[in-house]
Amino acid sequence: MPAKDIPDIVVGRLPIYLRELSFLATEGIQVTSSHELGKRLGISAAQIRKDLSHFGGFGKQGMGYNVGHLREQLRRILKVDQEWPMALIGIGDLGRALAHYGGVVDRGFRIVALFDNDPAKIGQQIGDLEIMGMDQLAPIVRERSIRVAMIAVPAAHAQRVAEACLAAGVQAILNYAPITLNVPPDARAQHIDPVVHLQRMTHHL
Amino acid sequence: MPAKDIPDIVVGRLPIYLRELSFLATEGIQVTSSHELGKRLGISAAQIRKDLSHFGGFGKQGMGYNVGHLREQLRRILKVDQEWPMALIGIGDLGRALAHYGGVVDRGFRIVALFDNDPAKIGQQIGDLEIMGMDQLAPIVRERSIRVAMIAVPAAHAQRVAEACLAAGVQAILNYAPITLNVPPDARAQHIDPVVHLQRMTHHL
Repeated sequence: MPAKDIPDIVVGRLPIYLRELSFLATEGIQVTSSHELGKRLGISAAQIRKDLSHFGGFGKQGMGYNVGHLREQLRRILKVDQEWPMALIGIGDLGRALAHYGGVVDRGFRIVALFDNDPAKIGQQIGDLEIMGMDQLAPIVRERSIRVAMIAVPAAHAQRVAEACLAAGVQAILNYAPITLNVPPDARAQHIDPVVHLQRMTHHL
Repeated sequence: MPAKDIPDIVVGRLPIYLRELSFLATEGIQVTSSHELGKRLGISAAQIRKDLSHFGGFGKQGMGYNVGHLREQLRRILKVDQEWPMALIGIGDLGRALAHYGGVVDRGFRIVALFDNDPAKIGQQIGDLEIMGMDQLAPIVRERSIRVAMIAVPAAHAQRVAEACLAAGVQAILNYAPITLNVPPDARAQHIDPVVHLQRMTHHL
């Protein structure tokens, strides 16, 4: 089945499976099952089997999955068997934490450029990277073929910054501003807003 | 329909609607429609109407929704017409950014206690709050009736910290560690891992 036919809700669960498989691999576990994965992830075994069946040939019921093989297949399907260079825009408290965060490396991503519009921050160094002004965004994105960006600017600026990213060649945006971005159909946006997750839980309390 | 019967996937969209309605309210817009909301959120108007119909009586097709009224109803349904005191555990780069983040206030939440296990951090002040040691977690959670916690500790510690929170009385955990928490059926956990969102997008690139 061509990749474009996999339902997005299924695609959304694959990174969770991949993360758990990587965890199992570091624990030295070589074979797992939909039942075991499901128990660890709070997802039914049937759901996991169905999700993986979209790609076919990963295992047989009762036989278990080879952790290393399934992990490699998922990395390939999610296209993180390569490393995506990323731009990070907005170096406030959160942006700074993201710039320092090592958790994206080895999982397919590396922040290669930092941007902010505050003259006091431009030129500052974070690790190996220097914070650049917004006027550098378009040329740097083009020059380094950056297709993924993280946005951690205030809500009032997020849409404008997203449009600048897309105009420069970015195709996927992870937005931390608490606002829903409007992006054209050929671009992707995902949103992280802690309050959305918190409110989803308080409803049940 | 009693709150417990609303499908969780619907509950998960309500905070997005609430956020957009609050944005509309600050823009002075008093009436909106499922079509307008859908356009802004990238969700079909039919989906929005169906989601809101779970609660009944918010508007009639063709009449539009009263922004203020719908907002108040959603706040009530999500139980954020009150303020939930929260504990934040793990004051590294991300925890520090979360402690400074003002975006949860006015949306139903307030961080009231900070915890870390690093003796060098315990006693440090962030804003009005002093970082406390993990030995203070249980007594403080009990004393202040804290039912919601955010966890920003390394992955290797997250499950243990979550269990300590739950044992003390916490019922809902927002976990930033890149690991799926195992929580009992009477507790809630939500996870924020930027890589999960990034990988969901790169699949399509």
